[in-house]
Amino acid sequence: ALSLAGLASAQMKPEDAIKFRQSGYTFMAWNMGKIKAQAVDGTTPFNKDQVAAAANAIAAVANSGMGSLYLPGTDKGKGWKDTRVKPELFTDKEEVGKIAKNFVEQANKLQQVALAGDQAAIKTQFGEMGKACKACHDKFRIEE
Amino acid sequence: ALSLAGLASAQMKPEDAIKFRQSGYTFMAWNMGKIKAQAVDGTTPFNKDQVAAAANAIAAVANSGMGSLYLPGTDKGKGWKDTRVKPELFTDKEEVGKIAKNFVEQANKLQQVALAGDQAAIKTQFGEMGKACKACHDKFRIEE
Ligand code: HEC
Ligand code: HEC
Repeated sequence: ALSLAGLASAQMKPEDAIKFRQSGYTFMAWNMGKIKAQAVDGTTPFNKDQVAAAANAIAAVANSGMGSLYLPGTDKGKGWKDTRVKPELFTDKEEVGKIAKNFVEQANKLQQVALAGDQAAIKTQFGEMGKACKACHDKFRIEE
Repeated sequence: ALSLAGLASAQMKPEDAIKFRQSGYTFMAWNMGKIKAQAVDGTTPFNKDQVAAAANAIAAVANSGMGSLYLPGTDKGKGWKDTRVKPELFTDKEEVGKIAKNFVEQANKLQQVALAGDQAAIKTQFGEMGKACKACHDKFRIEE
């Protein structure tokens, strides 16, 4: 079980670091799904506050410094499941930096348009956000 | 694997709902750990921006409407692991409501004091936040 001690630093266990990043991404996916249903597909009625809360969550995760969870020794191993990270994420720092920077920018922009509440703008920016996730997955996540 | 379709609504699979709530809580635990290390224990130097980002993440998760992840049929089952929710969470709505309301309030307050950056105030409010998590776990989470 997790304790709050040793969750933040050099003492963090590799399996906890992997678990935290898998948790952060999976939590974003849930929030992306809510925005998609309400502002893109219309399978759920559009609710401005719910979409804003979802975009807030994505932006807060994006700005939380998840890069620190890619500790040495976490290129292999199991968090909730075996890590799907590719070794390139630990070596190709320039490309990672570019992709991560764009990801944070798109998340901040999604948060802005969601707070403003214009459904068409949210739909467009949702598309950009999805591309920013995919850009990373294409380069740095192992296919399942 | 997760797809963005069906992540938001009645079609959500019970195992995804459980996975999302386990992810949200675990992601908060990572962020609580960072605040603890920097503002409470001092095992990591205090960095105002990092603490604010961590508190933002906790508040955004707290305000994301995780209550909707306690769908009927998710009182048993496996997300990342077997759910630890107690059946009372689905029946004792009044107590759940009180505990959840206090949790959101404490998270919003932690975000405020973290943005202001006063380390002593953050330390105090971190304690209140921890109590709000524990209040729910004592009543509604199965011991391991
Ligand atoms: C900077 C790179 C990067 C960005 C940006 C990124 N991801 Fe990922 N994602 C990864 C990596 C690497 C993994 C594998 C993590 C692991 O298993 O250790 C992953 C894992 C995941 C998983 C878990 C899948 C599983 O194995 O169960 C989901 C879901 C996911 N990402 C969704 C998203 C969404 C949604 C976004 C954008 C809102 C996003 N990701 C942005 C790199 C990224
Ligand atoms: C409203 C109730 C509630 C609140 C508030 C709450 N939790 Fe929980 N927590 C739960 C329940 C229920 C579970 C079990 C979820 C499941 O397995 O389906 C859980 C699971 C967890 C887990 C996953 C443990 C595991 O089994 O691996 C962690 C970590 C956690 N909580 C930390 C926190 C932290 C940190 C906070 C506050 C910042 C918090 N929780 C606030 C009810 C709550």
